[in-house]
Amino acid sequence: MYRPEIKVLDCTIRDGGLINNHYFTDEFVRAVYRALSEAGIDYMEMGYRSSRTYAPPEQYGAWKYCDDDKIRQIIDGIESDVKLSVMVDAHRVLEQQFAPVDESPFDMIRIATYVKDVDKAIVLQKRVHDLGYETTINIMAISTENEFDLVEALDQIAATTTGTVYVVDSFGYFFSEQIHYIVELFKRHLPGKRLGIHCHNNQQLAFANTIEAIRKDCNLVDGSLFGIGRGAGNCPLELIMGFLKNPKFNIEPVLKVIQDYMIPMRQDLEWGYLIPYAITGILNQHPRSAIALREGPDRDKYVEFYNQIRDHMD
Amino acid sequence: MYRPEIKVLDCTIRDGGLINNHYFTDEFVRAVYRALSEAGIDYMEMGYRSSRTYAPPEQYGAWKYCDDDKIRQIIDGIESDVKLSVMVDAHRVLEQQFAPVDESPFDMIRIATYVKDVDKAIVLQKRVHDLGYETTINIMAISTENEFDLVEALDQIAATTTGTVYVVDSFGYFFSEQIHYIVELFKRHLPGKRLGIHCHNNQQLAFANTIEAIRKDCNLVDGSLFGIGRGAGNCPLELIMGFLKNPKFNIEPVLKVIQDYMIPMRQDLEWGYLIPYAITGILNQHPRSAIALREGPDRDKYVEFYNQIRDHMD
Repeated sequence: MYRPEIKVLDCTIRDGGLINNHYFTDEFVRAVYRALSEAGIDYMEMGYRSSRTYAPPEQYGAWKYCDDDKIRQIIDGIESDVKLSVMVDAHRVLEQQFAPVDESPFDMIRIATYVKDVDKAIVLQKRVHDLGYETTINIMAISTENEFDLVEALDQIAATTTGTVYVVDSFGYFFSEQIHYIVELFKRHLPGKRLGIHCHNNQQLAFANTIEAIRKDCNLVDGSLFGIGRGAGNCPLELIMGFLKNPKFNIEPVLKVIQDYMIPMRQDLEWGYLIPYAITGILNQHPRSAIALREGPDRDKYVEFYNQIRDHMD
Repeated sequence: MYRPEIKVLDCTIRDGGLINNHYFTDEFVRAVYRALSEAGIDYMEMGYRSSRTYAPPEQYGAWKYCDDDKIRQIIDGIESDVKLSVMVDAHRVLEQQFAPVDESPFDMIRIATYVKDVDKAIVLQKRVHDLGYETTINIMAISTENEFDLVEALDQIAATTTGTVYVVDSFGYFFSEQIHYIVELFKRHLPGKRLGIHCHNNQQLAFANTIEAIRKDCNLVDGSLFGIGRGAGNCPLELIMGFLKNPKFNIEPVLKVIQDYMIPMRQDLEWGYLIPYAITGILNQHPRSAIALREGPDRDKYVEFYNQIRDHMD
């Protein structure tokens, strides 16, 4: 698939940070930055810009806050065309500050929101847009939103200055026909906006659904190294690169950083396809119950878990 | 997706047997048979009917041969509507015998063939059809066949009495649009035949491609427990069951046999998504080089492997 408009964003540090409270080493983050730079990836998301009031610093690593100075330290001395992004949860904005874009290492602010918080997202979007940043609004968990509310949110967003709006399948519930439907809905209600896609891999459909979104003209696509991310993880960046034939991409640095860092990391951190995540995906549920299960002694009691979730839904 | 014509075949023992020389215990095979029976699965493939001349019995377990008596022993005492199938490689037929269907535990013979061996497949198909079996012809590795040869093979198969013809993405190379194209090609050249789909998971697309084949009217779909199978494995049966809403299916026995048997088995056997399999899939190559890599000391040297394969293709 060669379409020069397609841009790729790596969310390894940001979504991966959700499974280790954002305690990646500086060495690792630098290695990822270097690899993505060599590979021709368009954006790297460094983490969250979280409120230290809501998220006390004694509980989280640096990538929960992504202070500008910290980021400058990481990228120092590495030649790169990669643009940097940071994510903010619209419903968890308190004292966080953003420098004007000229004084910041970041190029893009991504605002994650539920439909119910879209007004907060829009206020924040205006604030950071006025500081000069590219912005995206990422609507999470849309597989459980009713279409009336979703369309109302889209119509509000259509009137903003945001450049990009993301379809986020937080629960890993959708398959191709649903992706086609939802992307078409976004297109209809967001004329002139670039669309993005962020998928989860509960049913091993993250890469497939990313392809389907690309076929329907999504031009900003998220992936992560070896699919790292919360629960079942994300669309593997290496598979996106195998699919996109744009000659500016080079897969080798990505393979290298996976072999050097991700494989050892898998000894300590768990992500990817597992039955409890498949169950929450199939049943269109938040993965939090599956994540909790995997941390306890019943981690492989699938039938019990399936019945608990079913009972809970009744 | 509720379409009563869709039948599901479990190939756990057959395709899984390729990673342990077919040495599954009788207890495990019985447990799978019992689970599939309770789950409402339509077919279970017990293994291969191989030539003992080509495949010496000191090297392989019972599921390489699937002698009728052995199978009777396994299913004895378990109530079941599951039909049994066995696979034969068309190019490795020598002294293998088949009893008339009334005297056999099997209902269906699946004939695996490359395009070049289709004449052998047709001869064997006629022989076993005349003994009363349902038959399928499974055309392997079609992602490397030219369309002229493939169409010639399809036209020959169209003239046989086989009920079903399978699309087999042996290399895990296809994505949705290619699946659509190839299934349409099969439909055009095989009027009146049921179509089947068997996918490999090199690019995490086995389940997605199975769905796409179902959307294009494939009505016999292969899966395996937790996706077990050679290399990157197959489409996970549990995901097919989550997708198909036919009320005759019950996912719980499948989850149970996965938790009781497949999770412990993963300690000793490797299958599923790994970078070397992704590489052979992306490059449309047979997975044998990736399988060999995983058995050696360089199992995680992905960049070297990628370059070797690229050089080898030049």
